Amino acid sequence: MEKIKPRTLSGFMELLPPQQQQMEAMMEILRRTYALYGFTPIDTPAIEAAEVLLAKGGGETEKQIYRFTKGDADLALRFDLTVPLAKYVAMHYGELAFPFRRYQIGKVYRGERAQRGRFREFYQADIDIIGDGQLDVLNEAEIPAIICRTFTAMGLRRFCICVNNRKILNGFYEMRGLGEKAGDVMRTVDKLDKIGADAVREILVDEIGVPAADADAVLAFIAITGDNAAVLSALDGYAGQNETFDTGLAELKAVTANLTAFGVPQENFRIDLTIARGLDYYTGTVYETLLPDHPEIGSVCSGGRYDNLAEYYTDRPLPGVGISIGLTRLFYVLGEQGYLNPAMNTAPADVLVLPMTDAQEPAVRLATVLRGAGIRTQLYNEKKKFKAKLAYADRLGIPYAALLGEDEIAAGKVSLKDLRTGEQVTVTPEEAPERIRRGLGSAGPVIVEPDGTKA
Amino acid sequence: MEKIKPRTLSGFMELLPPQQQQMEAMMEILRRTYALYGFTPIDTPAIEAAEVLLAKGGGETEKQIYRFTKGDADLALRFDLTVPLAKYVAMHYGELAFPFRRYQIGKVYRGERAQRGRFREFYQADIDIIGDGQLDVLNEAEIPAIICRTFTAMGLRRFCICVNNRKILNGFYEMRGLGEKAGDVMRTVDKLDKIGADAVREILVDEIGVPAADADAVLAFIAITGDNAAVLSALDGYAGQNETFDTGLAELKAVTANLTAFGVPQENFRIDLTIARGLDYYTGTVYETLLPDHPEIGSVCSGGRYDNLAEYYTDRPLPGVGISIGLTRLFYVLGEQGYLNPAMNTAPADVLVLPMTDAQEPAVRLATVLRGAGIRTQLYNEKKKFKAKLAYADRLGIPYAALLGEDEIAAGKVSLKDLRTGEQVTVTPEEAPERIRRGLGSAGPVIVEPDGTKA
Repeated sequence: MEKIKPRTLSGFMELLPPQQQQMEAMMEILRRTYALYGFTPIDTPAIEAAEVLLAKGGGETEKQIYRFTKGDADLALRFDLTVPLAKYVAMHYGELAFPFRRYQIGKVYRGERAQRGRFREFYQADIDIIGDGQLDVLNEAEIPAIICRTFTAMGLRRFCICVNNRKILNGFYEMRGLGEKAGDVMRTVDKLDKIGADAVREILVDEIGVPAADADAVLAFIAITGDNAAVLSALDGYAGQNETFDTGLAELKAVTANLTAFGVPQENFRIDLTIARGLDYYTGTVYETLLPDHPEIGSVCSGGRYDNLAEYYTDRPLPGVGISIGLTRLFYVLGEQGYLNPAMNTAPADVLVLPMTDAQEPAVRLATVLRGAGIRTQLYNEKKKFKAKLAYADRLGIPYAALLGEDEIAAGKVSLKDLRTGEQVTVTPEEAPERIRRGLGSAGPVIVEPDGTKA
Repeated sequence: MEKIKPRTLSGFMELLPPQQQQMEAMMEILRRTYALYGFTPIDTPAIEAAEVLLAKGGGETEKQIYRFTKGDADLALRFDLTVPLAKYVAMHYGELAFPFRRYQIGKVYRGERAQRGRFREFYQADIDIIGDGQLDVLNEAEIPAIICRTFTAMGLRRFCICVNNRKILNGFYEMRGLGEKAGDVMRTVDKLDKIGADAVREILVDEIGVPAADADAVLAFIAITGDNAAVLSALDGYAGQNETFDTGLAELKAVTANLTAFGVPQENFRIDLTIARGLDYYTGTVYETLLPDHPEIGSVCSGGRYDNLAEYYTDRPLPGVGISIGLTRLFYVLGEQGYLNPAMNTAPADVLVLPMTDAQEPAVRLATVLRGAGIRTQLYNEKKKFKAKLAYADRLGIPYAALLGEDEIAAGKVSLKDLRTGEQVTVTPEEAPERIRRGLGSAGPVIVEPDGTKA
């Protein structure tokens, strides 16, 4: 028969089993952490009517979208989880209670130019809190706690949640009479890290037409740094001149007021006045999360406060706040940077039951006992030499082998071999699960920062 | 602004939060149970090259497939998880250890005619065990244990795993000289439940041209019923006449030999000689799982043994055994039949923290303590009347409210109100998690059979 060459499309992540286990561990942490904060999971179709998905229309997105027809239906694959959320909330408004807190972890599709580390199919892991007409700022204050617990649970320690408020930026630019140029100015300021203050000043003055004194003021403003108290105190110096600014400052104070009570360590949080987030969509608090050891990666978890989730579908004002983790890219980047814990148990099973005689029943009984006790168990009965059986376990990294020879069967016992140390003990089937559980110990979390400081 | 009507395509399941929680509970059970049996998760793209996905070509499938182009790429959405598995194993052969045991839970796409209970996007939850050239029959014997533990964990009790062996059927038909007609005969016999023995006999004789004596023999053969011992004993009466039959009988005996050791109760298992599974793909043991109270639903978990997983991609023989649960349809059917437990906790949180004063910090601290102890906690700070706050909790079915008034804050305590009973106790924040955990108790599993027998 003519064979077709099996291949996976470029830009699509397909992991081998050990890496998939690490990915699953990260997803499980996301589900558990999001649930701890009272978010409920939803699941929306990957395919939507193109008209619905592209209600907003235009822009880069439309070029990247996978759009096709089936019969006479004009269809498209979702390119993010925000538009489907807007559709969901507008459509099911009467059946939801507000604030509506949902999480969604799902694949989205963007037919981007293929390049290293860019994916055409990738997971996003989003949370959003949607209010009905209004939404208390305490919800915005809670977001850094969620980001912090999520990454900490994964084993990450050196990350920084950077927070700003769009109203502070907009208010400041209004104060300087730069309101109309605010968009251009923010986009330029966003390049500060890459091109430096002098180049930013040049663009502001020469290309955007900002008066030199205002350009200096902008640079002075975004140069405000320090701990929360220092930054807030510096911002107080601008207060009383612009209502938008004052509102933003009050919100920023509310967001930072309860950080300790929320369990966010000081070293994982920073007010950063250079952060604006590209999207005009955001209207208040904005978040980015950086890895200080790898600034080149950019933000691994971003989002913000918006005024109107579903304006393309409904007149009802639905303000919200949300964040998104680009999980596939994050996983890829962590792997590239050597952040994935090589000691993690990524085997398909915790123990391999090996019958050493022709008697199957004792092996089956043992496997059933182990599984009943929650131990992930493989029963191996292929006709191979003992050495080949152990090589199988070894190749998969299965930590234990349970050997059942004539002696063990006669005694109603099992020989439990730790394949990592070679140590072997003979125990009853009922004792085995606890032995194995203890021995699995703490291989550590899925992420371990490369310098050896295990979280 | 002109509004677009938000809608979800017909044939696509989109659940409200309480139902989604039930679906997630089922998925979690599937992941956990499959992992207990040593299966490792994999994840493959929803989009594949059309050439790869349609290597087998032809048939009903091709008409239903979502196929489209992007740039010059001819693409298609996967219509099952078996073809992607074949691709995966053929492609990554050198990096896998065999037997390769994988599970995959993912969405697949079939552009079927829309009708009630039929879905165009649906989850399949598959397990397969793939051997490299050979695969021991004990793997086939293990499958009923996995099916049994999965459904039992969900709360289902009245289900029957029906097992047959294609070699027994093929061997029997060869014995009667009906080898070439076996396919047509099996398809007819498959209608036995629907049309009855007389009609089956008529089709066999008149349409397929089976001699009357042979038609009677076929009907006598498939009429063999009883417990395992009785059926096996009746089958022994046919032994020694056909090699294929004898091999099949030996396999069937191996599959039934260790049922008790595998923990499969007698009432959940039956040898059923009428089961053939439509696909020519299967070559040995075949499985179907029926709900005796709802035969009209058909099989909710099916599969079997096959000789060659990836023949379209590689010359390497890769025999395997696998089963598939059509999760979306199963969930839909369970809901229709009233099998989903209405008492299950489907709230987004276990407790709603309600600040009763303007002091936010004690509420935030309490929420952090609760979350740290693994309690799913929502912090509610919207400016509403107390009654509206409780109505919010009530609407979502959140079981507990944690009230923080002036007295509680002064005493360093919290009033914990059980919203189901109205009972209220005042405890310290540290005592609260255990109180809540105990109170959540056992609302029961996700499935409860309608007559009130809770599993």
